[in-house]
Amino acid sequence: MSDATRIDLVLGERSYPVLVGPGLLAEAGAYLAPFARNGRIAVVTDEAVWSAQGQHLQAGLAGSGIEAVPVIVQQGEEAKSWGGIADLLDRLLALGLGRGDHLVAFGGGVIGDLAGFAAAILKRGCGFVQVPTTLLAQVDSSVGGKTGINTNAGKNMVGAFHQPSLVLIDPDVLDTLPERQLRSGYAEVVKYGLLGDADFFAWCEAEGAVLLAGNAKARKQAICASVAAKAAIVSEDEREQGGRRALLNLGHTFGHALEAEAGFSERLLHGEAVAIGMVLAFRFSAARGLCSVGDADRVAAHLSSAGLPTGFNADAAQLVRHIRQDKKAESGRVPFILVRGIGQAFVVRNVDLEEVEAFLRKERSA
Amino acid sequence: MSDATRIDLVLGERSYPVLVGPGLLAEAGAYLAPFARNGRIAVVTDEAVWSAQGQHLQAGLAGSGIEAVPVIVQQGEEAKSWGGIADLLDRLLALGLGRGDHLVAFGGGVIGDLAGFAAAILKRGCGFVQVPTTLLAQVDSSVGGKTGINTNAGKNMVGAFHQPSLVLIDPDVLDTLPERQLRSGYAEVVKYGLLGDADFFAWCEAEGAVLLAGNAKARKQAICASVAAKAAIVSEDEREQGGRRALLNLGHTFGHALEAEAGFSERLLHGEAVAIGMVLAFRFSAARGLCSVGDADRVAAHLSSAGLPTGFNADAAQLVRHIRQDKKAESGRVPFILVRGIGQAFVVRNVDLEEVEAFLRKERSA
Repeated sequence: MSDATRIDLVLGERSYPVLVGPGLLAEAGAYLAPFARNGRIAVVTDEAVWSAQGQHLQAGLAGSGIEAVPVIVQQGEEAKSWGGIADLLDRLLALGLGRGDHLVAFGGGVIGDLAGFAAAILKRGCGFVQVPTTLLAQVDSSVGGKTGINTNAGKNMVGAFHQPSLVLIDPDVLDTLPERQLRSGYAEVVKYGLLGDADFFAWCEAEGAVLLAGNAKARKQAICASVAAKAAIVSEDEREQGGRRALLNLGHTFGHALEAEAGFSERLLHGEAVAIGMVLAFRFSAARGLCSVGDADRVAAHLSSAGLPTGFNADAAQLVRHIRQDKKAESGRVPFILVRGIGQAFVVRNVDLEEVEAFLRKERSA
Repeated sequence: MSDATRIDLVLGERSYPVLVGPGLLAEAGAYLAPFARNGRIAVVTDEAVWSAQGQHLQAGLAGSGIEAVPVIVQQGEEAKSWGGIADLLDRLLALGLGRGDHLVAFGGGVIGDLAGFAAAILKRGCGFVQVPTTLLAQVDSSVGGKTGINTNAGKNMVGAFHQPSLVLIDPDVLDTLPERQLRSGYAEVVKYGLLGDADFFAWCEAEGAVLLAGNAKARKQAICASVAAKAAIVSEDEREQGGRRALLNLGHTFGHALEAEAGFSERLLHGEAVAIGMVLAFRFSAARGLCSVGDADRVAAHLSSAGLPTGFNADAAQLVRHIRQDKKAESGRVPFILVRGIGQAFVVRNVDLEEVEAFLRKERSA
């Protein structure tokens, strides 16, 4: 078998391995055999992923005599809806899936969230395997067990913590990923450096360009470092109760407000919003005298060099309105992830939203 | 405070107490105070329960300065639908409920299943307290963490194992329960005797009539014995993986088929179907030479004396078709709970459905 790197998510009886290796898709059958029943396994995916990468997964499974049964869902964020989950569960139940079965989530973050949530609630819970096909899903959303759908009240307002049994990451699938998607996912890679590992951020500065150009070694290294960082945090704080997991939200409170303002559309991808959000988290920390302006500039410079946006043009009051509705808001307080420097993020719970609004008014791009 | 009996569900960090005591509703505030936020708590209920018992819960909460915020859902099994859960979550989210909050499920099995499932998936899980108002919910469905809704594929096909933080059982609420509902719930009380405790079944034979007539002491005793039996089983096998929890399905495979045949309507209540199903489980076991015909007759005689049905008139082939679609069916096999006698139930996984059909053809009431 290929030279895969194994990273373990240590969560007691819910522990599972994350395997990272170029060419893993071609060997998927060997890894998924324990999860198939009667030589078949349901694969939840969308049309774009299935037409770009489906034949590779099918071939990999066929090598072990396993038939992939594709369950194609609607493309894009709209699939993460009540209608989308009801339809998906009807189809999975019609296939006869039961508690002892596993399904495969084969796609980006939307597919992982939707298929993972379906697995969480199918007959009160069946198993699932994540086979992420975007950089964002590979370094972030496929690991850690957050699943869910969107409702009238906002994104991911309904869902479950439901850990996969295995995450299979083949960086080669990124070859067919649109470049803008790749850059968007790269923002989440940089995030791990910024929140807790200054050396890794320095590595990003040195290797980010070759990674984005398609260098296989850099790609694998970035994915492994990201997954290892996330695994360590999730192992400590699976349900975001102790605070450590909240650090993964660096850039996300600002970013989420920007996404909401853009209507969660193609106008601003998640990773792009996170890139701007991370710059804002650093600038806000600098404005509070917590970190140096130099660090904030360095972050903005690197993200910009990676082709990511670092500024915004939206109404400050409107953004704060979105922040106030954040899922993590409790009793009108929204936790912010601030920084004391690169690699030194921490949670602050008593941020005054008027201060945030004044800050955003100044930061708004002319 | 009143003389409540406490039974603990021991499930590691998911452990919780079940409190049983007449008059507990009047003291609800003292028990629910730790779960209210800013002096308010959302109470998911239906019109019938709220008009019959709402003022008692409100008064009990008001005594501790807690305001009950009623969230009234559709009456009956239809509430356990995709539309029902989406609507309920929209309303709970609009109230601002978050991960750290609790809601109260105040009603029978439908309310407990629906509100519990809402709690399981609201922002990936909030807390909830069960305050069951039917005998069936008090002795069975409010304890153990099974939650869910129905789909096109069948009953409870989508849901979660999500344990409440507290179960508050006030037998006095049964005073306003329709008699047919009370008898239906009583079938589940008898079940605990039949599946594992011959002495308790003998107690039912002796005290069942006074219990159904409203005797407070007998009522509390039956509830405590039932909850203790269920707690012991669930503590051993929370997710029905080891087999022990499956024993709670005594009478349910046959019963479920009968309910399906009656269209899950008022024509046949759940407990009524379980009563017939338990008699069939005993008669089927007797036909296989596993238990005596005398035991089967004794079971039928007691359930009949409690005003419960013990025979059926439906097509055997049609019932077996329903059994084949049972949620617990895996690879065409349906587990049956059979008995070696009163108090001695066990799981059998290799039952031939042709044998079941021939048996049902003979058992069908003329």
